[in-house]
Amino acid sequence: MFSRQSLRLFSSSVQRSAKTKLKHKMSAAQATNAEFSREALESVLKRRFFFAPSFEIYGGVSGLYDYGPPGCALQANIVDTWRKHFVLEEDMLEVDCTMLTPHEVLKTSGHVDKFADWMCKDPKSGEIFRADHLVEEVIEARLKGDKEARGIKVEEVEEEDDQKKKRKKKVKEIKAVKLDDETVAEFETILAKIDGFSGPELGQIMIKYNIGNPVTGDPLEQPVEFNLMFETAIGPSGQLKGYLRPETAQGQFLNFNKLLDFNNERMPFASASIGKSFRNEISPRSGLLRVREFLMAEIEHFVDPENKSHANFDSVKDLEVSLLSKEVQQAGKTDILKITIGEAVKQGIIDNETLGYFVGRIYKFLVKIGINPEKMRFRQHMSNEMAHYAQDCWDAELQTSYGWIECVGCADRSAYDLSVHAAKTKEKLAVREALKEPITVEEFECNIEKKKFGPLFRKDAPKVEEWLSSRTQCDLENLAKELETKLKITTKIPGIDAENVEIPGELVKIEKKRKTVHIREYTPNVIEPSFGIGRIIYSVFEHCFWTRPEDSARAVLSFPPLVAPTKVLVVPLMNNKELQDATKEVKSVLRKAQIPFKVDDSGASIGKRYARNDELGTPFGITVDYDTIEDGSVTLRDRDSTLQVRGALADVVAAVQNITYKGISWEEGTKNLTKFESKSDE
Amino acid sequence: MFSRQSLRLFSSSVQRSAKTKLKHKMSAAQATNAEFSREALESVLKRRFFFAPSFEIYGGVSGLYDYGPPGCALQANIVDTWRKHFVLEEDMLEVDCTMLTPHEVLKTSGHVDKFADWMCKDPKSGEIFRADHLVEEVIEARLKGDKEARGIKVEEVEEEDDQKKKRKKKVKEIKAVKLDDETVAEFETILAKIDGFSGPELGQIMIKYNIGNPVTGDPLEQPVEFNLMFETAIGPSGQLKGYLRPETAQGQFLNFNKLLDFNNERMPFASASIGKSFRNEISPRSGLLRVREFLMAEIEHFVDPENKSHANFDSVKDLEVSLLSKEVQQAGKTDILKITIGEAVKQGIIDNETLGYFVGRIYKFLVKIGINPEKMRFRQHMSNEMAHYAQDCWDAELQTSYGWIECVGCADRSAYDLSVHAAKTKEKLAVREALKEPITVEEFECNIEKKKFGPLFRKDAPKVEEWLSSRTQCDLENLAKELETKLKITTKIPGIDAENVEIPGELVKIEKKRKTVHIREYTPNVIEPSFGIGRIIYSVFEHCFWTRPEDSARAVLSFPPLVAPTKVLVVPLMNNKELQDATKEVKSVLRKAQIPFKVDDSGASIGKRYARNDELGTPFGITVDYDTIEDGSVTLRDRDSTLQVRGALADVVAAVQNITYKGISWEEGTKNLTKFESKSDE
Repeated sequence: MFSRQSLRLFSSSVQRSAKTKLKHKMSAAQATNAEFSREALESVLKRRFFFAPSFEIYGGVSGLYDYGPPGCALQANIVDTWRKHFVLEEDMLEVDCTMLTPHEVLKTSGHVDKFADWMCKDPKSGEIFRADHLVEEVIEARLKGDKEARGIKVEEVEEEDDQKKKRKKKVKEIKAVKLDDETVAEFETILAKIDGFSGPELGQIMIKYNIGNPVTGDPLEQPVEFNLMFETAIGPSGQLKGYLRPETAQGQFLNFNKLLDFNNERMPFASASIGKSFRNEISPRSGLLRVREFLMAEIEHFVDPENKSHANFDSVKDLEVSLLSKEVQQAGKTDILKITIGEAVKQGIIDNETLGYFVGRIYKFLVKIGINPEKMRFRQHMSNEMAHYAQDCWDAELQTSYGWIECVGCADRSAYDLSVHAAKTKEKLAVREALKEPITVEEFECNIEKKKFGPLFRKDAPKVEEWLSSRTQCDLENLAKELETKLKITTKIPGIDAENVEIPGELVKIEKKRKTVHIREYTPNVIEPSFGIGRIIYSVFEHCFWTRPEDSARAVLSFPPLVAPTKVLVVPLMNNKELQDATKEVKSVLRKAQIPFKVDDSGASIGKRYARNDELGTPFGITVDYDTIEDGSVTLRDRDSTLQVRGALADVVAAVQNITYKGISWEEGTKNLTKFESKSDE
Repeated sequence: MFSRQSLRLFSSSVQRSAKTKLKHKMSAAQATNAEFSREALESVLKRRFFFAPSFEIYGGVSGLYDYGPPGCALQANIVDTWRKHFVLEEDMLEVDCTMLTPHEVLKTSGHVDKFADWMCKDPKSGEIFRADHLVEEVIEARLKGDKEARGIKVEEVEEEDDQKKKRKKKVKEIKAVKLDDETVAEFETILAKIDGFSGPELGQIMIKYNIGNPVTGDPLEQPVEFNLMFETAIGPSGQLKGYLRPETAQGQFLNFNKLLDFNNERMPFASASIGKSFRNEISPRSGLLRVREFLMAEIEHFVDPENKSHANFDSVKDLEVSLLSKEVQQAGKTDILKITIGEAVKQGIIDNETLGYFVGRIYKFLVKIGINPEKMRFRQHMSNEMAHYAQDCWDAELQTSYGWIECVGCADRSAYDLSVHAAKTKEKLAVREALKEPITVEEFECNIEKKKFGPLFRKDAPKVEEWLSSRTQCDLENLAKELETKLKITTKIPGIDAENVEIPGELVKIEKKRKTVHIREYTPNVIEPSFGIGRIIYSVFEHCFWTRPEDSARAVLSFPPLVAPTKVLVVPLMNNKELQDATKEVKSVLRKAQIPFKVDDSGASIGKRYARNDELGTPFGITVDYDTIEDGSVTLRDRDSTLQVRGALADVVAAVQNITYKGISWEEGTKNLTKFESKSDE
């Protein structure tokens, strides 16, 4: 099966079935950070212009967001870290392919036919609903109403909506109506299986339970498939249909031969790509988690199907990760297995070393950019979630106030992608490997009496020949049997009108022959780690956000210095000529050291200025005061602890550099500087 | 006038009129690099997979290219340099806005109506031609034929086509047909003015000179406008029409208020954006110079219209640049003025300091990434090229084998963009500045007898009121005069059907009043430097390409180390265990220093391995040999001179770091290392 969910990367839906079930089973401690308020975070993100709805002065467009300066810098730093962590450290071949993609390519990949959601229309109002979401929400509301009617206290589940004013939930009010026990049980079953229904099945549920427009009650049309790709026409004739790519992967597959050549024909190797992709969501919500245009970073690691070991596996094998295996989920459980990657591969929980290696690398990357490892797990796809060709798939899921969010997919896609494009274009996408020792193989060979083909098949002769020559070993084995028993081959041949073509035995000979082979030719398998950068950024926001215990209005975004939008806030004690000159010197030294900084020489108090920048996640503050003029020393403040140290400007800048770019701790980095007692935040 | 050419950034056309004329007037030395062979360059770019046509195994799509690993790394390094040079050094506010843009926004900006080229169709074959290109090519071919017929030697002008096999020139063969002198003169005039014709004018030329399908001679339909934006539908209803943005600027304008707020209401400031834009070219050619999807980097510098000085102007004022002013061009000349920016602004050649400042910054950026300053000039837009609202505009043009190519636009767009969006959305996009001293102003005020409006105008009353209240000071002055003389106002009001509306004098009073004002409110002007990264990259290829005099088959791409895709090639003398261990050590030190490198441990000779990497533009080679095992020393090779020095690994890596990232010269950077005599390239 080739469902939308089983396409590579996360399904763009916040994965529901598993999650919905899990939400209720998580321990309280796991489930919520008692201190965390999404409202407070959103207020900071908006006020500091981390991001905002696009085209807001025109009323906005759902699912489209712009990143403002701090969001844009955070994103650039995360992308830069990704590039260093994966592309540079691992010698990957980065490519930049176009977003515009012609129809034929995405037809071959399967996206034209299968990359769709089910929607249904209200014929009266013209409103359009995504069928699975509608059924889910209406049934959840009815279950809630039932509980109210039974006098059971209803737990408040937080709204998924970040733009409350604009886009209300479809079901506006919960009516306290008691349901019979049987219906309650049926509803619960439907919710648990909500991701698995086909469109017609959703339609039947809507009829059976009378689910219509949740506001007016009017009946809806039956669900129809809606392809999620944005369509456009390339060139002036309008005849070359194209789409905006739904993922960056196809460009990498299509360039396989060039990449293999660039890599001097050596295997295994990986390509990588960072760029925007597009999905025309039916009704996007959940802020940055479900958008119509988003940044992806994808790796295609091409590997010998007979040898999925990884040269650097040792570097991750002792890393302990949290796994949620398919067996556990299929048994209806959610128990996390804490296990080293080495052990997981050894026990066959993770299919192979290369997949395990990337699980480890993904873990390390996410921790490096500010993800809380306690809120990260790897969930294996269940058998019915995966495409038929996929070997194994693990999603890195991050825990947020929206539940566990799929942020990185890591799939072993076997040889599927290269095979379909090769079959369609007749371009070989394969590796030829010189064997160390030649080997002897037995293979079926098909020989034909070419000169008899013309007289018998006339204009169809080339088609019959081509058909015979393109049979696989397995086909040939069957045809050999057919010839043996029936002395002829009877078959339908594409492109020939006749119902059946008969090929007499005297025209064709199929025999097994022994051959000595010096070259092994194979289609590589693909291991694909695929990152949704926007979702990761949102998770970083949640994991790094807290408020100071002494004052809940003072919010802090504790980004790791490496990815923080700005590294240093320079704060002159007063805005006067003397300190301006000293500040200029600080700026020039920071600029020379290529450390991104901002100056705040406004009249606000030092404490206020630092508070403002704690919200921007700036890890360091440098205060310029009258002693700076005297002896060239400055004060360095740590964002998280508000501790201060003092030293010569050059030493302070060196400390900032070491902590930011070399990953040294604050304690270690500032050990040669003097503790400074006056608190900066007063 | 708001022609396509006058829209911001370069017209996507390789600018013709001016250029075509110039081609003939350039001195031979300026016009061609005798050594340069585009064919040799293209062969290297293809072989080393700098870039390639997208979807090549599917037959390709014109105007779409993928960057392979070295092209992608070069692009990433150029973008990174751009970000440091402009965004970080100048404290710009970078934003990342969506490419999907709703119809209404681009309707307001003018793109829906005016961002078009003229095309004409062959009704018989269905072929589509871009009208101006067709007329130009046919006339050029006829002029060439005329010269042949007259026995005049025709100078070979290089083909603009990089995919010769696929897309031949429209005019396949030159027929030696003599024209009468009058026609020759007319043709030359047409060529000189080719950019200035409207569609109907082009149509008339086609009829008059019988220009049809150049292959069959069949007549073509009259030119029709073809909008160059890719259209799509946002959301499932298909009713929200959208486009892929043709430039990144609109997102910056729409976020103006948020950016001003982020900047603590301080002026002037600049926003910046790096991202893909799209233009559905009618028939793209010229390789990377005219593509349908391309990377742009744009700056919008918002400035007080009454004060366009720039705080850092001094840093560029002594820089000498090559200017081609509009006066010179309008006089039909092409004389380059070599002048300092300070002098050019002083003399009023460049309109203001801010514009001059950016001309200087653009110059410095381009030189930093490998552009030859001798092949760079700034061409001022002529009056008929500029939009009516534009104050001044200078294009950085780079000389290539295709002629002078517009690569960076630098325009003073006045208050146009903010004004149109503010007018459309009723959202104020303006700066409010507290005046140091309150001032007294005389302003017209319009007071109406509101209660009399209803009875007289009925349902139109609100429209009349709104019309009156939205008049400018200048409008009010005229209306006051009209009231004085005619005792009523007679006008057409948008939204009211009546031909004219009469507003009697007793309902409205317009008087000049004195007011004390504490706040000055103004719409900022925008200075917009706009970079076409793909065109710049192509120019860098040409400017950095050469072949070794001793062997023209040995090509070199002399990228500055800062932007070179890879900085170091590590070459072990032999591929054996001993040297493998030493190589591992070199790799680990380079990785720690975050220097991008590659290892070539193939069996090829050292010379061959270096030659391969000269083509990739890798500036340094480190050779690992048996002495490395003895004393830890390595050899460092310079790509351009093939000179070698030797020293301890740590010192060699430090030299690489200093030369690459601190801009130190090879001589200075290696002065403490020992000269090494054996030539690496043998």
